[in-house]
Amino acid sequence: MTSKQKLDIARQLSKLGVDIIEAGFPVASPDDFEAVKAIAEQVGNEVHEDGYVPVICGLSRTRENDLKRAWDAVKGAKRPRVHTFIATSEIHMQYKLRMTPDEVVESAVNAVRYLKSLGCDDIEFSPEDAGRSDPEFIYRILSAVVEAGATTLNIPDTTGWNLPSEFAGLIANIKANTKGAENVVISTHCQNDLGLSTANSLAGAYAGARQVECTINGIGERAGNASLEEVVMAIALRGDDQLGGLWTGVRPVHISPSSKMVMEYSGMPVQPHKAIVGANAFAHASGIHQDGMLKNPGTYEIMSPETIGLQRSGGDVGVVMGKLSGRNALDSRLKELGYELEDAALTDVFKRFKDLADKKKVVADEDLIALVNDEASQGDFMRWNLKDIQVVCGSAGLPTAAVRLEDAENDGEVVVATSIGTGPVDAAYKAIDSIVGLKVELMDYSMASVTEGIDALANTRVVVKPKGESLVENAQGSLRERTFTGTAASEDVVVASARAYLSALNKIIALGSGSGRAAKETTKTTTSLV
Amino acid sequence: MTSKQKLDIARQLSKLGVDIIEAGFPVASPDDFEAVKAIAEQVGNEVHEDGYVPVICGLSRTRENDLKRAWDAVKGAKRPRVHTFIATSEIHMQYKLRMTPDEVVESAVNAVRYLKSLGCDDIEFSPEDAGRSDPEFIYRILSAVVEAGATTLNIPDTTGWNLPSEFAGLIANIKANTKGAENVVISTHCQNDLGLSTANSLAGAYAGARQVECTINGIGERAGNASLEEVVMAIALRGDDQLGGLWTGVRPVHISPSSKMVMEYSGMPVQPHKAIVGANAFAHASGIHQDGMLKNPGTYEIMSPETIGLQRSGGDVGVVMGKLSGRNALDSRLKELGYELEDAALTDVFKRFKDLADKKKVVADEDLIALVNDEASQGDFMRWNLKDIQVVCGSAGLPTAAVRLEDAENDGEVVVATSIGTGPVDAAYKAIDSIVGLKVELMDYSMASVTEGIDALANTRVVVKPKGESLVENAQGSLRERTFTGTAASEDVVVASARAYLSALNKIIALGSGSGRAAKETTKTTTSLV
Repeated sequence: MTSKQKLDIARQLSKLGVDIIEAGFPVASPDDFEAVKAIAEQVGNEVHEDGYVPVICGLSRTRENDLKRAWDAVKGAKRPRVHTFIATSEIHMQYKLRMTPDEVVESAVNAVRYLKSLGCDDIEFSPEDAGRSDPEFIYRILSAVVEAGATTLNIPDTTGWNLPSEFAGLIANIKANTKGAENVVISTHCQNDLGLSTANSLAGAYAGARQVECTINGIGERAGNASLEEVVMAIALRGDDQLGGLWTGVRPVHISPSSKMVMEYSGMPVQPHKAIVGANAFAHASGIHQDGMLKNPGTYEIMSPETIGLQRSGGDVGVVMGKLSGRNALDSRLKELGYELEDAALTDVFKRFKDLADKKKVVADEDLIALVNDEASQGDFMRWNLKDIQVVCGSAGLPTAAVRLEDAENDGEVVVATSIGTGPVDAAYKAIDSIVGLKVELMDYSMASVTEGIDALANTRVVVKPKGESLVENAQGSLRERTFTGTAASEDVVVASARAYLSALNKIIALGSGSGRAAKETTKTTTSLV
Repeated sequence: MTSKQKLDIARQLSKLGVDIIEAGFPVASPDDFEAVKAIAEQVGNEVHEDGYVPVICGLSRTRENDLKRAWDAVKGAKRPRVHTFIATSEIHMQYKLRMTPDEVVESAVNAVRYLKSLGCDDIEFSPEDAGRSDPEFIYRILSAVVEAGATTLNIPDTTGWNLPSEFAGLIANIKANTKGAENVVISTHCQNDLGLSTANSLAGAYAGARQVECTINGIGERAGNASLEEVVMAIALRGDDQLGGLWTGVRPVHISPSSKMVMEYSGMPVQPHKAIVGANAFAHASGIHQDGMLKNPGTYEIMSPETIGLQRSGGDVGVVMGKLSGRNALDSRLKELGYELEDAALTDVFKRFKDLADKKKVVADEDLIALVNDEASQGDFMRWNLKDIQVVCGSAGLPTAAVRLEDAENDGEVVVATSIGTGPVDAAYKAIDSIVGLKVELMDYSMASVTEGIDALANTRVVVKPKGESLVENAQGSLRERTFTGTAASEDVVVASARAYLSALNKIIALGSGSGRAAKETTKTTTSLV
């Protein structure tokens, strides 16, 4: 994601009313640092009318350089926090850290002391892979960090190994056996490898945890994290009755727009049968006839779609945008949907909106979001711009593409190329390749219609990888291949495909040129955004 | 899904070793009846070497006609079962059934007695919406059906309302308060509306249930059902340690192929972060560099991908299919993947395989599955066949398509049409419309590359709805709009799109002609297949 996209999401999380926004891993790259800093300075200072302002948190290993960068990134917020972690399970200490338990405790305590010395008073500590760690060792390290000044103890089931009763026991035991636990907040962080992250989070909260780490749509490493929407709605619906009166400050009516924004920006779709936010989660979306036999939606619905900010189809859909809508109307509708555009970007989106409105009678919110995402995912530096593309294809002959690209690094020089291919997209990509000259592999290609109707926009997403090794390290110390994602929306699938591909190539070029302005590897950075 | 596809899935479930296959709702339509009957007669009689053969079960309301149809459909199996249900919650009895509690008990008891009179001895009964029903009423109706002859009592949390501890309490109380409970099997059926279906199923099993109803990939109404793969792997990994020694007879090595088959055939994708079967569920699939810093995969993996039948990329990928592979090699590879093709279908797939192998060096298993699915989803009766299509499109001009269709109802007469559109797919669909003459609305359109690489096959899926009302009733008595799905795979996105659209239109025509041979509404029939 671009910094702009991360900022949009942070602003949406603030609307949602989450207590803490874990905004990123600042040491990872200058981009990550700047994104967290911008969120701290902007969203971390936008105090709501009721006095609420989210804590902005940066993630950090226990190394001094990491900690310093994390603190520098968040300290501009009204309520800054640093979250530091080190692994405590046998397998992690032995194979990943190559440290003894004593060294691990020392490193954790030093990290907390160092943060205090920097002026950071809101300190969260996690014993990574707590779910598979020796409980006695966890009590020891947690007691030590509390004594050093940690104020939140987060308990990660890093591999999604725990069952709910087991995880509840871990939380209860930590509360009972950690010196000073009564003065700090215990937190849960549950991964979803066995599909139990929501249940584990609820069990942990019932056992005494008062912070739940989760992500929108449940995205995250591997099988993801606990889903904010599932945890929040389970507590909202059953907290009084089944969870001893637990509650959260989250405003569920912003769940659906938040889910859509994260889906668009991260490129991580949710399945149709995803709880709460999936396309089929409410009966009305899966073709159930509203005026049919069932007069009471409560027979199969335990909450109404409106609760989470989703309009029941056929009902009041609010403002309808069309060809007569002006620039201001577009701007205010986008703001309602959570998207704040700068002037130049708004001009671009408005132009494309008008083109679209000429072809479609009603432009839906989903169309607007697709256009904004197309704009937002382009990055700041685009060397190559698609001027024209023409394709001939079909079953009868050789798919052939001609493209005209404009080169921003050479005074807008226009270059033309043609190619054949196995299909129209292959032909177009080969023609683009012959101009741009980068060697990449296509890792993934997908497309979906944005709304119903054959005249709908097609949202296209490609993931490419530069040929040859290009590895980046994540917070957990593992290496992964650097990939680049491009997305685009158009009524023409071939145009959308070409734009998406160019967007990904331009990101590689921006990074390669050393400016790093637009380049972001797709290592699912949103994971840590909630 | 077509009957052929349902049979493939049932055969795969038998490989997987599930105890009971709930194969469908026979009274719904002649197609449903025939599909269940075929599964009962074929898969229900294929006894494995160790003596295992799955129970084949048909779902039925408590009406005599339903029960008779269900029994007639399954009685050809070695171990036939009928599963009958009626709702027991206040809201369902009052608004859906419009029956008093006494009438509901009478209806349930009569249903069980009638099944016994037909010769059915394996009888499952469900009090629908048990999760929101008065417990005392549940004990009463369950005691009555056990006395009448029911052998399995299934407890559905129909709306996904329960928390794990609550559902465990319900199961334990039912065991304690139902007369004769010690002689029957208690079963769980957990929906996923709050993301808790797996946790609830495990809690129910720990509290004494000895049958767990679940679905491959967790598909089902709204947010779906408990995922077989999550329940099975949680029990496999933690049963001894945390669940009092629970175990299942499922062979996990068949999980991944089963998941892929259900995904292809149902058109219901799983999200990348779906537990166990999502594309990112194992680190190796999300770009983690295997030879990188982490020498021990156990640091972040609680099971190996090979456990569930997924090959780690870069490892031994088994048989590689390519342009030198013959028809027999293709046939045996497909059988290994779980697909048994009849001669004519194999010939078609082999021809397309050779075409593809000419363009791609290595044809992956995913490519083969896409070709088989393209073939299997065509249905038996195809009035219109795509002979040729040619498209010109791009940013510069008017997207234009020309199509040639062959009309199987008029001696193969070839008809040609052209059209412009907002994009190449729109143009192609309008040209097809002008020949076929059906009025449909496009509900959904999506495409994804089958494997990495720009020369990959594109899998296209469209969902259309005939204009005007066309409602069907499901087992729960709700009405839904009848929609038709078409899928196709091709290297050319425009060709794939046209083929998929024609496939959907042909299904509408087959249904409309009264033959009903190929037509199946997409009411997620797989839901009840496990």
